[in-house]
Amino acid sequence: MHISEKQIEIRYAETDQMGVVYHANYIIWLEIGRAQLIKDLGFAYTKLEEEGYLSPVIDVSIQYKAALRYGQVATVRTWIESHSRIRTTYGYEILHEDGTLAATATTVHTLVRKDNFRPVSLSKVDPEWDAAYIDNMRVQE
Amino acid sequence: MHISEKQIEIRYAETDQMGVVYHANYIIWLEIGRAQLIKDLGFAYTKLEEEGYLSPVIDVSIQYKAALRYGQVATVRTWIESHSRIRTTYGYEILHEDGTLAATATTVHTLVRKDNFRPVSLSKVDPEWDAAYIDNMRVQE
Amino acid sequence: MHISEKQIEIRYAETDQMGVVYHANYIIWLEIGRAQLIKDLGFAYTKLEEEGYLSPVIDVSIQYKAALRYGQVATVRTWIESHSRIRTTYGYEILHEDGTLAATATTVHTLVRKDNFRPVSLSKVDPEWDAAYIDNMRVQE
Amino acid sequence: MHISEKQIEIRYAETDQMGVVYHANYIIWLEIGRAQLIKDLGFAYTKLEEEGYLSPVIDVSIQYKAALRYGQVATVRTWIESHSRIRTTYGYEILHEDGTLAATATTVHTLVRKDNFRPVSLSKVDPEWDAAYIDNMRVQE
Repeated sequence: MHISEKQIEIRYAETDQMGVVYHANYIIWLEIGRAQLIKDLGFAYTKLEEEGYLSPVIDVSIQYKAALRYGQVATVRTWIESHSRIRTTYGYEILHEDGTLAATATTVHTLVRKDNFRPVSLSKVDPEWDAAYIDNMRVQE
Repeated sequence: MHISEKQIEIRYAETDQMGVVYHANYIIWLEIGRAQLIKDLGFAYTKLEEEGYLSPVIDVSIQYKAALRYGQVATVRTWIESHSRIRTTYGYEILHEDGTLAATATTVHTLVRKDNFRPVSLSKVDPEWDAAYIDNMRVQE
Repeated sequence: MHISEKQIEIRYAETDQMGVVYHANYIIWLEIGRAQLIKDLGFAYTKLEEEGYLSPVIDVSIQYKAALRYGQVATVRTWIESHSRIRTTYGYEILHEDGTLAATATTVHTLVRKDNFRPVSLSKVDPEWDAAYIDNMRVQE
Repeated sequence: MHISEKQIEIRYAETDQMGVVYHANYIIWLEIGRAQLIKDLGFAYTKLEEEGYLSPVIDVSIQYKAALRYGQVATVRTWIESHSRIRTTYGYEILHEDGTLAATATTVHTLVRKDNFRPVSLSKVDPEWDAAYIDNMRVQE
């Protein structure tokens, strides 16, 4: 199981009037973590889109543990929680610089054809990528 | 139990290169729905902050059912799912103009003092507001 | 000359740690003002995109006069500053509820074909729309 | 005159339905460039805020030259265009990986006290920082 790590330099634009990072912005970081994991495994999300596929998010669940602030660097740790013919679940931890947990999350994704939004299986679209996900998933079913 | 309704005119800025609303932007709409519910019940979130309190989000869970696009008007329906001394859970539905479900969600919130982020009970800060939430919650425990 | 008016309910997500609206978010409101002006004149930007055209921004200039805050309602006033075969300049004022000026701005746009980003003239694409812009522009050359 | 360079990995969330980066997001990058320049010169914007000051933007002017896309890395080059007792103007170029110009911009800032939004001079607040800006400005008046 591979866990990718991606650092996020927190932007002023990401704060709100509470003086901390606005909660919806963490969701954007999850996607950056996901892209890093895909890259670490040797694949590219952009290539998938170029070939006519999209990977929409169908479920997000996130638990906020500690606030993050402008000027800090967060780390997003991302892994494959589970992967099946029809959906992939990614797991995440967002950490402070000292390792304190700022948030935990999972997101669930399908794969669809760009032209008709019909679901397809990653095993058909890119068998190597599919195999890499099966090899690296945390939950062995 | 009161269910508030708030219309959201979808912004061009809210779309992404998939041609639909970027998934993190729904989280922003949940907050707009929440503010509407509070207003419908006769209270104001801004007043709470002015008096030295914040209501941070500690958990978001959202299920995406159908894509939304620029030019469409979404409706956010918001209600009190549950409410206790230490946390409040809001429930949401996001609907297309024809009533089709675009997403369902819940968010969990605490109430803290602005100066030290220490939790306080809404029943102490604003007993009337607390009573209105108890009267209107969906889950009767 | 027509000046459209569009109200913007300020979102919590639009604030930053200064406690006021983050400056880049005004740019998003300009686009909402623009869409309102087009609608007032009887046209629709979405239809233009459906027919294979895009109207990218090539220049933005904005002057910030007074801060706006969460809970306030801003008004965006939008008009055609000038319009020629190759570019359209929109003028804007963003106002507080009491009429105080919060910002002034202009944006310059071209019209291009979606497939090759080549410029086209609105007079060719939609002569009626083009005529409406000429009739309504502020600067008579 | 120092020109700072800061790389921006373009986020999926920053695209819109045109398939390119949404124009308002460039404004966020300018601020990241600005923070880098300040850091390069040995100062920190966060420290300024901690000491009770804010540096609001009063004017933004940006010219878009070439679209940027998800997966690309943009570079923001930032310098002091001019600096006086009451305002500082930053100059910017945003570049593609091959050096192609994607945008040019300037932003104008004042310095104010956080508690009353009254203007102050950087020469009073931090004479060293003020001197560094004078030494590094492009326009010698």
